[in-house]
Amino acid sequence: MNPFAEYLARTAEVVQRELQVLFEAEAERIAARTPELTPMFKQVRELTERGGKRLRAALVLLGYRVVAGDVDPVAALPAAAAMELLQTYFLVHDDWMDDDPVRRGGPSVHVALRDTYGSRRVGDAGAILAGDYAVSLAQQVLLRSPVGAAERLAAATEFAALQRDVVLGQCLDVLVSEAGDRPGALTDLMQRTHLLKTAAYTTTGPLLIGAALAGGRGSQLDALRAFGDPLGVAFQLRDDWLGTFGDPALTGKSIDSDLREGKKTAVLSALDRDPSQHGALRAFVGGGAGRARSDAEIADMRRRLEQSGASAALAHAVEEENGKAGVALRALGLPADVEALFRGMMTLIAERRT
Amino acid sequence: MNPFAEYLARTAEVVQRELQVLFEAEAERIAARTPELTPMFKQVRELTERGGKRLRAALVLLGYRVVAGDVDPVAALPAAAAMELLQTYFLVHDDWMDDDPVRRGGPSVHVALRDTYGSRRVGDAGAILAGDYAVSLAQQVLLRSPVGAAERLAAATEFAALQRDVVLGQCLDVLVSEAGDRPGALTDLMQRTHLLKTAAYTTTGPLLIGAALAGGRGSQLDALRAFGDPLGVAFQLRDDWLGTFGDPALTGKSIDSDLREGKKTAVLSALDRDPSQHGALRAFVGGGAGRARSDAEIADMRRRLEQSGASAALAHAVEEENGKAGVALRALGLPADVEALFRGMMTLIAERRT
Repeated sequence: MNPFAEYLARTAEVVQRELQVLFEAEAERIAARTPELTPMFKQVRELTERGGKRLRAALVLLGYRVVAGDVDPVAALPAAAAMELLQTYFLVHDDWMDDDPVRRGGPSVHVALRDTYGSRRVGDAGAILAGDYAVSLAQQVLLRSPVGAAERLAAATEFAALQRDVVLGQCLDVLVSEAGDRPGALTDLMQRTHLLKTAAYTTTGPLLIGAALAGGRGSQLDALRAFGDPLGVAFQLRDDWLGTFGDPALTGKSIDSDLREGKKTAVLSALDRDPSQHGALRAFVGGGAGRARSDAEIADMRRRLEQSGASAALAHAVEEENGKAGVALRALGLPADVEALFRGMMTLIAERRT
Repeated sequence: MNPFAEYLARTAEVVQRELQVLFEAEAERIAARTPELTPMFKQVRELTERGGKRLRAALVLLGYRVVAGDVDPVAALPAAAAMELLQTYFLVHDDWMDDDPVRRGGPSVHVALRDTYGSRRVGDAGAILAGDYAVSLAQQVLLRSPVGAAERLAAATEFAALQRDVVLGQCLDVLVSEAGDRPGALTDLMQRTHLLKTAAYTTTGPLLIGAALAGGRGSQLDALRAFGDPLGVAFQLRDDWLGTFGDPALTGKSIDSDLREGKKTAVLSALDRDPSQHGALRAFVGGGAGRARSDAEIADMRRRLEQSGASAALAHAVEEENGKAGVALRALGLPADVEALFRGMMTLIAERRT
């Protein structure tokens, strides 16, 4: 078995328990002071506990491991839980923005709260507030980490930077619906979005938070960033590949849905490099997510993608980014067992099918 | 002149300059990394720079003054600016929730961004993200405060608690549309809302953040809280009084608008204590802000309020809360010039007409 997959499964259990304890205490506070808010709290709790892979939480613990060595990572558990609460915040706001009805096998929070309050307006406001509540709780939990003041402060600083980066990445994703008027412009936009929204958030940020908690400084953090950034980009490229060329039976998602909403994915980069395709690409992306592309438009785009070899180009790009991460990994000079975890993570990310 | 009014005017200028410097640096970062987000950034900047009284920023500086003594409060300026950025976050999300078109003499952010993007959906998402961006910037600015790690951490912890409290207070305000089925229930709900949403946010929180930055601890912070909480409640009660009994020429707001949306203000408390009025009160509040009350309903409610002496009762409650703040103020044992500022603040809050 992939050693990182094993690590992920083990840490997911530990993080789940940490979250449960945290939510138990929080449930008592809510019941004592603001019992009217139980429906909102329940949504935050249920969405968070329904889980996902806990990849970000595991990376906080792994970042801590890199600096602290082979010790019980109990001091990093609140920070790992805080990452999951931050994730809840983003998911809740994101689902409202996309009006996605389902998340992690249950109703998305805005949909559940519309139902609770019998009002679209109140439910939507409740979802924004539920996200705001989750992020404020995340801050509180992180700041209570049982380490020294300097380490807590360093971790909080990384956390704030991560939060800012992912918000700006989300802004690029949601607010920018143009491909730009020159070949390569879409690819440039997308690469910046990936660095902000995925690398900062999924790989680099959690690693740095964990490392900072353990007292990691300067060059050690830079070396982790040199590893996390290309790995995060590889993660996003693979995600984009799965969205258009993956197996819907495994991903649980139609391979047309990204194309339907004209999502600015890395899949489209193959056309973006070809000046003769750039007009068609701009027309396709134009109108943003607000415009549903017709079946004919999607078929035409698939034909163009096939002719340009988009699938292979994207698979190659994943390998390239993973290669950069591999170089950075060797520079980190980790003990063999930790390096094996990092290598396992790279394999898992590059080869995942879901 | 009221010494606090003078202090407020002076600090407003200093805080404005701090914000301008901060936004200049931020404008460069946005232009360099995500120039596409200039319209969103511009909205955050303009709303923040358009100002308001900077009461919260001034209280951060005053809290710092209480602990640090008569020194240049330059170390507390980033925190003061962070409070204003937090205020921007709340205003942007709040205006979207209420669909208010105007804020601080300009378009509210969601209205401006709907126009920028030619889409209600994208504009609304942009406003939520603009608020999220403002709060992440606030965190970063606060964490850069030029004081020791322990003091920065203490201030960040107060900041996180404040953020959580005001979100929960806003939840009570927006999500709870029932008056409760027993006399006194509405008043109880309202009092908890005021403590969370106004006292924590407007008075106590900023004072504690400033004091924590200067190294204030335990009993000193408790004493500031004992002062700030009743003062914050007085602030809110006066606000509610102005909303229904004030002079629209001075407040710039119709005296019917709170009643029209059935807002759960302290004005209604006079009826809430009277079992014979409780049915009428429940019916009036029922349906929340989603239901516009008719002119006849409003006239009927005004008659009931007049008969119950609501205006005088509310004015009395303001005095009572201010009295509690006065007792707590003496216990703080401040130097005469600082105590004069605090007294000036109490007078300003109790007697303000706008």
